[in-house]
Amino acid sequence: MKVDLNVDMGESFGMYTMGDDENFMPYITSANVACGFHAGDPCVMKKTVALAKKYGVQVGAHPGLPDLQGFGRRVMEVSMEELYCDLMYQVGALKAFLDAAGMRLHHVKPHGKLYGMAHTREEVAKTICEAIRDIDASLYLYCMKKGVLGQVAQSYGIRPVFEVYSDLDYDKDGNLVITRHHEAHSPEDVAAKVIGMVRDGKVKTTSGTEIAIEGSSVCVHSDSPGAIEIVKAVRKVLTDNGYTIESPGI
Amino acid sequence: MKVDLNVDMGESFGMYTMGDDENFMPYITSANVACGFHAGDPCVMKKTVALAKKYGVQVGAHPGLPDLQGFGRRVMEVSMEELYCDLMYQVGALKAFLDAAGMRLHHVKPHGKLYGMAHTREEVAKTICEAIRDIDASLYLYCMKKGVLGQVAQSYGIRPVFEVYSDLDYDKDGNLVITRHHEAHSPEDVAAKVIGMVRDGKVKTTSGTEIAIEGSSVCVHSDSPGAIEIVKAVRKVLTDNGYTIESPGI
Amino acid sequence: MKVDLNVDMGESFGMYTMGDDENFMPYITSANVACGFHAGDPCVMKKTVALAKKYGVQVGAHPGLPDLQGFGRRVMEVSMEELYCDLMYQVGALKAFLDAAGMRLHHVKPHGKLYGMAHTREEVAKTICEAIRDIDASLYLYCMKKGVLGQVAQSYGIRPVFEVYSDLDYDKDGNLVITRHHEAHSPEDVAAKVIGMVRDGKVKTTSGTEIAIEGSSVCVHSDSPGAIEIVKAVRKVLTDNGYTIESPGI
Amino acid sequence: MKVDLNVDMGESFGMYTMGDDENFMPYITSANVACGFHAGDPCVMKKTVALAKKYGVQVGAHPGLPDLQGFGRRVMEVSMEELYCDLMYQVGALKAFLDAAGMRLHHVKPHGKLYGMAHTREEVAKTICEAIRDIDASLYLYCMKKGVLGQVAQSYGIRPVFEVYSDLDYDKDGNLVITRHHEAHSPEDVAAKVIGMVRDGKVKTTSGTEIAIEGSSVCVHSDSPGAIEIVKAVRKVLTDNGYTIESPGI
Repeated sequence: MKVDLNVDMGESFGMYTMGDDENFMPYITSANVACGFHAGDPCVMKKTVALAKKYGVQVGAHPGLPDLQGFGRRVMEVSMEELYCDLMYQVGALKAFLDAAGMRLHHVKPHGKLYGMAHTREEVAKTICEAIRDIDASLYLYCMKKGVLGQVAQSYGIRPVFEVYSDLDYDKDGNLVITRHHEAHSPEDVAAKVIGMVRDGKVKTTSGTEIAIEGSSVCVHSDSPGAIEIVKAVRKVLTDNGYTIESPGI
Repeated sequence: MKVDLNVDMGESFGMYTMGDDENFMPYITSANVACGFHAGDPCVMKKTVALAKKYGVQVGAHPGLPDLQGFGRRVMEVSMEELYCDLMYQVGALKAFLDAAGMRLHHVKPHGKLYGMAHTREEVAKTICEAIRDIDASLYLYCMKKGVLGQVAQSYGIRPVFEVYSDLDYDKDGNLVITRHHEAHSPEDVAAKVIGMVRDGKVKTTSGTEIAIEGSSVCVHSDSPGAIEIVKAVRKVLTDNGYTIESPGI
Repeated sequence: MKVDLNVDMGESFGMYTMGDDENFMPYITSANVACGFHAGDPCVMKKTVALAKKYGVQVGAHPGLPDLQGFGRRVMEVSMEELYCDLMYQVGALKAFLDAAGMRLHHVKPHGKLYGMAHTREEVAKTICEAIRDIDASLYLYCMKKGVLGQVAQSYGIRPVFEVYSDLDYDKDGNLVITRHHEAHSPEDVAAKVIGMVRDGKVKTTSGTEIAIEGSSVCVHSDSPGAIEIVKAVRKVLTDNGYTIESPGI
Repeated sequence: MKVDLNVDMGESFGMYTMGDDENFMPYITSANVACGFHAGDPCVMKKTVALAKKYGVQVGAHPGLPDLQGFGRRVMEVSMEELYCDLMYQVGALKAFLDAAGMRLHHVKPHGKLYGMAHTREEVAKTICEAIRDIDASLYLYCMKKGVLGQVAQSYGIRPVFEVYSDLDYDKDGNLVITRHHEAHSPEDVAAKVIGMVRDGKVKTTSGTEIAIEGSSVCVHSDSPGAIEIVKAVRKVLTDNGYTIESPGI
């Protein structure tokens, strides 16, 4: 029984710090590294890759919409040609740092509103898969079980890694509620929710109903309030329940 | 007797067009493709790579300072760490498009003020060579014979391709006069200057004196007034004098 | 019988030129000046204001979505708070150049997709009007008769100037078809369309049907192919039909 | 005996937080508000103006070089025409928020490397004064006694407010040591340094020597480690020594 712990990393920019990557990295197995469009910059990318290497964490690209001010959390109606090119550019940029560090790109996970759009619009899902195929079809694609992205990935021969969200809510239809700012949750609540999702395949929605959910990777956000305590609690509940915390394919 | 013809390409951005790449590409052998920091954007990069492929033109990365408004022609005192990372990022981004097109990155040529800084400041030259070494030490580095960049490249085991400028002036010390906007020159004047540099190893400076110069590649700018006529005149004078126009290593 | 001729101006950026403002300005009465978010930069704004002053052209602010690469022609789901602040910022920036030139801001006209959003979404229209009210409630607001923007303006006590589009198409419902790139039209076709709209209050739609339309200002785009010939033809047809070409309130 | 306490404010950007403006504002008398080029964004500017109004703090514009990633702390060789326009744009943008809040712009203080350049290069100082003159010649200009900026200001009829730095070091020639990141200092050390500068007109340099210094405003940085404790200590030492803490002209 293996579970992966994936976290968005490298979201600082210039003099601006976001998340506590240095202290967070030891607790996780997969890092989704921002690529400079919605967050991150070249120096942050280099440091984040080095940090992941130090702790044996797998690195995925975390490309986003070209909107630093909105942190990629505002819908932008980019064309599919633009999206394809924006993805190639961002993932290619990250690969340069990985190549130089002797590391291999592990996965791609779209960020923020792009992640949401990829789950509901088939053309967005296809464009993401075309970019992944043109870079390296053996890359994993992180996504939710629910939504078109996972299905489209499989039709392209790309392996999806289904993930569940520890610190974001699901609405009654099982859709993720993506907000600009992440809300505070207690480590205990998050741990209970995570083990419910991973072991029991169930989660409570914002309407109070319980729905089925499935995933082999748990996403924790480092810009949530109390994020370090939360990730520790998630690790503990998983290992206490007999899970090995490991990145896919390792 | 071989001579290369290198041209900055892919300098359009979004709705803004710069240069006439479509009509220019057939006349050249090496394209220096802007990487989105001083000019270019992901879609422009994809199109430029496709255009180079169509005409059998070798593609080099043309990274610049992070200043779109200044077109990379304003000095910025970036740290060497920042410069290294900015180079890795830009070259990596371009490589994604080349990889997807089944093409190989041929060279790196720093753009604008970065090019100037690289020829006069050893730490800048070293940083550029470190980035090239960490990407692929077999890449060519386009530079001038005069200045520290070529020497530093050789000390890193990186092969310099010395270039002469058809449409920029040299001052009395043999330094390139890099201006924000390129001035108009007649095709005849440029052709005479080019053959003087390539065949005779001489060029007239802005002070009126003649100095020795050396290069196996001729740079023509596509944003100079009358650029297409100029590149045709350069090709003609070179072939009329028995030179084969070809990219290095081909 | 007065008609205004309004044109988007100052859309160049850094080394990138868009439109032929120098040659266009003599033919128009109102200039909508880009404010640096979707196009334009501080130097371009200063030059455009000086050019408008030289030819006695009234200057309006032409604020857009914060997306230079998409030229403000991609929908972005900014919050109303963000939109309000983006508008205040852009209009304030332009006012500095007008104040220094001893000129008065004449109007506001939202650009591109923001213009489209303002005509269909009441909250967007309200936010624009709140920004105008907080800057100067006596400013004109350029908009189409059809759509919520004009009605909302009137409810805020802001005077709308209804405009008709010479070089953009209307769909069967009278909505403007806003494209990324403007298509070519012959000066004769545009002139015939303009006089039909201004004098007869009718326009042919993309479905071939004819609809009623109303406006006292004609918008011509300077980045349409053959724009100078088009604006001359528009002026001629209007003056030939007895109209005086003048900016509102002059 | 009056002393002003000026602090850089409004340096957050989008999702990125910089400084603790909410808690800092009650302790200061003059806020230098970032204008979106090196830091800040339109929403941050609006919030910062509202916060200053709440606490009766005077607001100055804090324009910087157009380099968000470098936080305006990297030299950029902008032309004087570009600098003038960049200043007009930034100050004008801030004025829109002040006008809407019924507040008056109090002063201008160049940020970061631009501040440094303004004290050593006469053309930079002149360009800043030309922009201030074209906006409102009655604005104060915050600067150091040492350097050309204050003298140039006086030649333009602009009133300089000389300031001393609580948390930045002076070198043996009395020049400010401007670093990318601000170093930690104890509140006690800063308080002792401040009272030494304000009351005794002396400061110890990085070489250990003591030099004469003069200023009626004390600058504290909100992004220094322990900034709140430092500003409290500075207030205490000043009021303990009989100074009234007040903004100039109030």
